[in-house]
Amino acid sequence: MTAFNPSFADKFTFGLWTVGNPGRDPFGQPTRPLLSPAEIVDLLGEAGGVLGVNFHDNDLIPIDANPHEANAIKREFRAALERTGIRVGMGTVNLFGDPVFKDGAYTSNDADVRAYAVHKTMHAMDLAAELGADIWVMWGGREGCETDAAKDPVEALSRYRDAINYLVNYSIDKGHNYKFAMEPKPNEPRGHIYLPTIGHCLAFIATLEHPELVGVNPEVAHEHMAGLNFTHAVAMALWAGKLFHIDLNDQEFGRYDQDFRFGSVNPKHAFNLVRLLEDHSYSGYKHFDSHAYRTSDRDDVVEFARGSMRSYLILKDKARQWNADPMIQELLGVINRDNSSHQLGSYSTESATALKEASLDRTEFASRPLPYEKLDQRTNEILLGV
Amino acid sequence: MTAFNPSFADKFTFGLWTVGNPGRDPFGQPTRPLLSPAEIVDLLGEAGGVLGVNFHDNDLIPIDANPHEANAIKREFRAALERTGIRVGMGTVNLFGDPVFKDGAYTSNDADVRAYAVHKTMHAMDLAAELGADIWVMWGGREGCETDAAKDPVEALSRYRDAINYLVNYSIDKGHNYKFAMEPKPNEPRGHIYLPTIGHCLAFIATLEHPELVGVNPEVAHEHMAGLNFTHAVAMALWAGKLFHIDLNDQEFGRYDQDFRFGSVNPKHAFNLVRLLEDHSYSGYKHFDSHAYRTSDRDDVVEFARGSMRSYLILKDKARQWNADPMIQELLGVINRDNSSHQLGSYSTESATALKEASLDRTEFASRPLPYEKLDQRTNEILLGV
Amino acid sequence: MTAFNPSFADKFTFGLWTVGNPGRDPFGQPTRPLLSPAEIVDLLGEAGGVLGVNFHDNDLIPIDANPHEANAIKREFRAALERTGIRVGMGTVNLFGDPVFKDGAYTSNDADVRAYAVHKTMHAMDLAAELGADIWVMWGGREGCETDAAKDPVEALSRYRDAINYLVNYSIDKGHNYKFAMEPKPNEPRGHIYLPTIGHCLAFIATLEHPELVGVNPEVAHEHMAGLNFTHAVAMALWAGKLFHIDLNDQEFGRYDQDFRFGSVNPKHAFNLVRLLEDHSYSGYKHFDSHAYRTSDRDDVVEFARGSMRSYLILKDKARQWNADPMIQELLGVINRDNSSHQLGSYSTESATALKEASLDRTEFASRPLPYEKLDQRTNEILLGV
Amino acid sequence: MTAFNPSFADKFTFGLWTVGNPGRDPFGQPTRPLLSPAEIVDLLGEAGGVLGVNFHDNDLIPIDANPHEANAIKREFRAALERTGIRVGMGTVNLFGDPVFKDGAYTSNDADVRAYAVHKTMHAMDLAAELGADIWVMWGGREGCETDAAKDPVEALSRYRDAINYLVNYSIDKGHNYKFAMEPKPNEPRGHIYLPTIGHCLAFIATLEHPELVGVNPEVAHEHMAGLNFTHAVAMALWAGKLFHIDLNDQEFGRYDQDFRFGSVNPKHAFNLVRLLEDHSYSGYKHFDSHAYRTSDRDDVVEFARGSMRSYLILKDKARQWNADPMIQELLGVINRDNSSHQLGSYSTESATALKEASLDRTEFASRPLPYEKLDQRTNEILLGV
Repeated sequence: MTAFNPSFADKFTFGLWTVGNPGRDPFGQPTRPLLSPAEIVDLLGEAGGVLGVNFHDNDLIPIDANPHEANAIKREFRAALERTGIRVGMGTVNLFGDPVFKDGAYTSNDADVRAYAVHKTMHAMDLAAELGADIWVMWGGREGCETDAAKDPVEALSRYRDAINYLVNYSIDKGHNYKFAMEPKPNEPRGHIYLPTIGHCLAFIATLEHPELVGVNPEVAHEHMAGLNFTHAVAMALWAGKLFHIDLNDQEFGRYDQDFRFGSVNPKHAFNLVRLLEDHSYSGYKHFDSHAYRTSDRDDVVEFARGSMRSYLILKDKARQWNADPMIQELLGVINRDNSSHQLGSYSTESATALKEASLDRTEFASRPLPYEKLDQRTNEILLGV
Repeated sequence: MTAFNPSFADKFTFGLWTVGNPGRDPFGQPTRPLLSPAEIVDLLGEAGGVLGVNFHDNDLIPIDANPHEANAIKREFRAALERTGIRVGMGTVNLFGDPVFKDGAYTSNDADVRAYAVHKTMHAMDLAAELGADIWVMWGGREGCETDAAKDPVEALSRYRDAINYLVNYSIDKGHNYKFAMEPKPNEPRGHIYLPTIGHCLAFIATLEHPELVGVNPEVAHEHMAGLNFTHAVAMALWAGKLFHIDLNDQEFGRYDQDFRFGSVNPKHAFNLVRLLEDHSYSGYKHFDSHAYRTSDRDDVVEFARGSMRSYLILKDKARQWNADPMIQELLGVINRDNSSHQLGSYSTESATALKEASLDRTEFASRPLPYEKLDQRTNEILLGV
Repeated sequence: MTAFNPSFADKFTFGLWTVGNPGRDPFGQPTRPLLSPAEIVDLLGEAGGVLGVNFHDNDLIPIDANPHEANAIKREFRAALERTGIRVGMGTVNLFGDPVFKDGAYTSNDADVRAYAVHKTMHAMDLAAELGADIWVMWGGREGCETDAAKDPVEALSRYRDAINYLVNYSIDKGHNYKFAMEPKPNEPRGHIYLPTIGHCLAFIATLEHPELVGVNPEVAHEHMAGLNFTHAVAMALWAGKLFHIDLNDQEFGRYDQDFRFGSVNPKHAFNLVRLLEDHSYSGYKHFDSHAYRTSDRDDVVEFARGSMRSYLILKDKARQWNADPMIQELLGVINRDNSSHQLGSYSTESATALKEASLDRTEFASRPLPYEKLDQRTNEILLGV
Repeated sequence: MTAFNPSFADKFTFGLWTVGNPGRDPFGQPTRPLLSPAEIVDLLGEAGGVLGVNFHDNDLIPIDANPHEANAIKREFRAALERTGIRVGMGTVNLFGDPVFKDGAYTSNDADVRAYAVHKTMHAMDLAAELGADIWVMWGGREGCETDAAKDPVEALSRYRDAINYLVNYSIDKGHNYKFAMEPKPNEPRGHIYLPTIGHCLAFIATLEHPELVGVNPEVAHEHMAGLNFTHAVAMALWAGKLFHIDLNDQEFGRYDQDFRFGSVNPKHAFNLVRLLEDHSYSGYKHFDSHAYRTSDRDDVVEFARGSMRSYLILKDKARQWNADPMIQELLGVINRDNSSHQLGSYSTESATALKEASLDRTEFASRPLPYEKLDQRTNEILLGV
C-alpha cells in the first residue's frame, strides 16, 4: 500500500499565481486575501513534497516597484525558499496584465509596444535566472485579435518569430542557458489567439534560428478548450523531442479557462496522460497550473495542492498496474501484429514494385479481432480499483 | 455591376463525392440517386465555370472492379471531361470506407494493414496521375482511436511518417511529380484523430524526408469542429509556404462534420478568408469539399454548386472594396505604427543592451487609439453592402 | 466483494439497434454482419442479466415488409424472448431513416408528410404494445433545419405540439397506456434540431393536453453534444417528476454523436449521475443507447454489453461508499447550514418587511468555510478505489 | 435609402455595465477609466437614439454606500437622464460580485446567504422601481457548482423556486408590477450553472406560483456558449408568450463569455434573429448586453454603441427586403404544402382510424422538391446586398 506522498524526486512545481490566486474572476471580487510571494512559498512548504515554485516577473516584483522594494521582496522570497527547501523551477514574463499589451506584445501593431515587450522579457529573464530558473515559458495570451480586420495574421507570425529569435539569442549571449517552452491557447483573453495548439507551436518552432533550444509547454485546459485530446498533444511533443515542460490541471471541453485541480474533471483523461508520461520517462517539471475553487479558504488551498500531487501519484500507480495486468498484456498481444511479410522499410523501386504487386487479402485482414471494448473496460476497472 | 460568373481562371474544383453525394447520413437512407462519374462531370458542366474535378480512387473505380470494368468507367469519364472542358485537378485515396481500415491505415496496429494501405495508395496515385492530377491530398480519417488504451500515439506518428516518406519517394521515383497536401481533422469518424489541426500537420511535415514536396489542405469544417479560427489556420499555411490546396465549405463550431455550402453558415468568417487568400495571391485550386443539403434534388444540387462559386466571387469583390475603402484605409493608418526608434532587427549584444536600457513609456503607448470597433463595424457594413 | 453481475431487478435494457449495430458510419461500410432481431435477443441473453429489449418499428419489421413477412419475424422474435427471458421494454418509431422524413416528420413543411408521420407512429405504437412495451420514446431527429430560411421555428413548435397531443390521445383511446418520454438532441443529423435539450422538452411538455403522461428520456451523449452537465439535466427531470426513461452512454463534449459505452469517456460524470439516480431512487428502465466500437466483432459486442452493465453496478457501489464515508459526511455537515433565523417560508408582507430590515452580516457569511477541494478530492479517491 | 439612425421607437437600451465597462478581464487590468453612472448616461446620449439605460443595484449605488452617498448618486443620475431624455428600462440585482455569493445566492447551501440574497434583491427592486424600471431581470450567475459533490441539484432547484416565488409576491405586494425575465447561462463564472438554457428557464417558470408574470431574457452569447441556435431559443420563448426582454450581443460557439458587439461575429445568425423578432412583432426592449473591445477608448466605445444599433436597423431592413423578394416568395410557395386531405385536427377515434387506414405514398411525398440551397443562397445574397 503506497501512501501517495510526494517527494522532490517527483519534480512537482506550482506557480506563485496558482496557490496564490485570490479568487477574483470576471464577475466577482477576490474571496481570499492576497499572499506575499514568501507566504505562498510557505504555503507550498506546508503542503509538503513540492520541489519548485515558478513565477512571472510581476508575480514576484510589481511592475512599478523601485529597486529598493524589489530587493526587499527578493530577500524575503529567498528566505522562504531556504526555510522550505523549495527552489525556483521555471520563469516567465507577464505580457498580458498591463494595458500596454491590450493588442498584443510581440505581435502588436505598434513597433514601440513590440520593443517594450522584448525589453520587459529580457529583464524578466535576468530576474528568473538570478533566482535559479532553468526553463523559460512563453505564453502569448494577448497575441491575437477580436476582429481579423485589425491585423494581418501572416505578418503577426513573422513578428512573433522575430521576437522569439531575438530572445533566444539573448539567453545564449547572457549565458542564461534557458530551455524555452512555448505554451499555446486557442482563445481567452483574446477572441482568437495565434498559435492556438501544441501543433501550431511545434510547427512554429521548426522555423526558428535555434529550434533545438525551444520546445513546448502543453496545458490540459488549453487543448481542452479546443476539444482536443490532450494525451495526443503531449504525445506529439514527446515524439518531436520537445516536451520541455508541462502544465497539469483540468477542464471541460469547449468552455472558459477553468484551471481546475488536476484529475478533477476527467480522471480517465488524466490517467491516459500519466501513463504516457511515465511510459516515455518524462523527466521535466510537472507544474500544476491551476487554482483552488473560488469557494476555498487557505486550508482548502492546501488541500487543493496536496490533492493535485496525490492524484498524479495515484494515477502513476494505476499506470504501473495497467502495464503489469495479465489481461491487458494478453489483449495487447492480440491487437498488435507487427509480423508482416510486407514491412515498409526504406523506399526502393524494387520494394515498391513488390508491394504494389503483392496479393493482399483485405477481407482476411479485416476479420482479425480487435477487442477494444474489452480492453477499455478492463482499463476502466483498473482505474476504478476493481 | 459584376455578374459573379465563374471562369476557369478562378480555379474552382469539386470532388466526385461532393455534388455526387446521394444524401445518406448516419440516420438515413440516400435521398438522391447515385450518379456515375461521367454524370457528375456533366452536372458540373451544367453548373458552369468549373475548372476541375477531384476524386478518391474508389469514387471513380469501385474497389472490386475488374480491369475491364475499370477501363469502361475511365473511358466514359474521359469522354465527359472532353465534352465539358473540365479537367482532373487533385487525386486522393480512400483509406476509410473499407472495413480493413476500421482501426487505421498507415497507423494501424497491424503491419499487414499498413502495407495494404501503402499498396492501395500507390495504385491510386498511378490512376490519378494517368488522368492528369497534379496534387495529392492525404486525409487520414481513420488514423486515430476511440480509446487511448488501444494504440501508443507516439508510435502512431512514427508509423505515419514512415508511410508518407515512402509514398513521396514513390511519387518522385515514378515521375508523378505530385505536390502533396495533408488534410487534418480532429475527430469523426474516429473518436480522436491524429494530426487534428493544420498546426499539427505543419509540424509533422517538418520531420519528413522531402518536406518541400508536402504542404497542407486546410478545410473550413475541420478546423471549425475544434472551434478554431480558420483564417488563422490558412494564414499559418501561407506564412510557411505550405498552402498547396484548400477545401472550402462551412460549418458551425463544435459539431459533427457538416460540410455545408461555402459561406452559408458565417459569411463574415468566409469574407476574412477570401480577403486573406486574395491579398496573399493564393493561386492553387479552390475545392468545394461540401455537399448539398439532404433535402436537395438534382436541380438544387446545381444551385448548390453555383452558389458556392458565386459566394466566393461576391466575397472577392467585397475584399477589393474593403481594400479600396477610404475609411478602412484611414483607420489602418491610425492602427499600424511601425515607425519606432526601437526596431528589433537582428540580435547583437549592443542592440540588446540598448533596448534593455531604453526608457519606454508604457503608459503613453497604452494610450494610443485602436479604433477596432469602428473598423469592424465598417467591415461589416461593406460586407452587408451598405 | 461484489461481483457486479446484473440481474433483472437492475432493469437494464438494450435497443435492437445498439448491440445489433453493424458498424456503418458516414465514412465507412459495415464491419459486422447484420443480425436478425431474434439473433440480437440471443446475444443479449448471452451477455446475461438483461431485462429488456427496445426497438423502433423498423428495427423489427422492415418498412416494406408484407404482413406475412412481419408475422414470421414477430414469431421468431417472440421465441427468442421466451428462450432468454428477456421482455420488451420501450417502443419507438423510426421517423428519420426514410427519405420522406428528410425535412422533418411532425414539423415538416408538407402536411402530407406530417400526416404520414402520425399514421406511421400509430401503427408503430400498436406493434410495440402488442409486444409488451409500456414506455413510448419520441426522438425527433429530423425535426429541424439546416437553414432558418426554410421553416418558421415558431410554427414548427405548434405543429410538433399538435402531433404529440394527437398521439397521446391515441394511446389513451386505444388503451395502450403508454408513458411517453421525449428525447432531445441539439443537432445531427439535422444542422439544428428543435427542442435541443431536456430543458426545452420539459417546457414543451407543460403546454400539452395531457402533460401528466409525458416525460423525458435524457441521453448522456445528446446533452454532452451541447457541452451541458448531464447530471443537472437528469436532476431537473427528477425534480419535475418527469424522468420516465434514461439513455445511458458516453460522449466527449462538442462532437458528433459518439454513443460510446456508458462510463467509458468520463467515469466521474458517470459516477455523479449514478449517485443521483440511486439517491433519488429512479426505478425506470436503464437503457444503454450506445454501440460497440466499429472495430469490435461479435465477441467484443458481448463484452461491450457486459461492460455497460458492470460499470453501472460498480458506480452504484461507489455511490453507496460515498454516502457511507465518514470524511464525506463530516464535510457535508460543515458545508450545509440550514439553521438560519431568516428562513424564507411563504410570502407575507410581515416576513418580507422583517427580512428587508434584518441586519445580515455578509462579510461573516462569506468567511464560513466551504472545503470543496477536499470534498472533491475525497470523492475522486473513492471513485479510484484508494 | 435609409440612414439607419436609431430613434426611441426602436426601444434600444444599454446597461450601465456595458458602455461603462472599463476593460478588465481575467488576465488584465482595466484599459479605460471608470465612468460614473451619470457620465455613462451622457455617453449614451452622445451615441444618440438610445431609449433606456439598465442597471444592477451596485452599478448605480456601491454595495457599501451610505444613504447620503446614495442620494447624491441618484441625484446626478436623474439629472443625466433628464438632460439626455433617456429613461430607465430594466433593473436587476448583483448577486455575483460579492464574496458572500461565491457558492450561490438563492441556491446557496447556507440559509443565511439565501436570506441575504432575497433581502438584497428586495432592496434592489425598490431602487429600480423608484427610478422607473418595469422589467426585472434575474441572472443567476453563481447558482451552480464546480463539483457535483457539493450540492444536490434537485434540492437547488427547489431553493431557486422558493426564492423566485417569494420575490414575485413581493413585487405584487409592493405594487412594483414588474414583469420578470429569467436569463440562463450554461457556465462561467461557475463551472456549471443551473438552468443553463432558455428551455430550462421556460420549464422552471411553468412550476412557479405566478408563471404569468415571469418570462425569459435570452442572450445571444449565453446560448452560443452551448453551441445552440439562438434564433430557435427566441422562437420558443415567443411561442410560449414569454419573450419579456432580450440581450443582443455576439459570440463564437463554445468559448468564454465574449459579449461582442451585436452582429459582429456572425451576421447571418443575427439576420435570422432580427427577421424572427420583426416578423413576430416583438415590442419589448432590445438591450445590447455587450461591451467594446478592451482595445477601445471612449471614442471607440461610442462607435461600438452606434454600431450595435445600426446593425440591428440594417438587418431589419434586410428582413423587409427578404419578405418582399419575389424569388424568396416563389420558393416559399414551392416549399410549404399545407393543402393535404389528411389534416390532423383534433383527435377523434374516427379521424385516427381514417388516418391509420389512409393510403399514403411516401415515395411520392419524398420526391417533392425542397430547393433549400437556392433559398439559402438567395437569403445570403440579400444579406450581402447583391
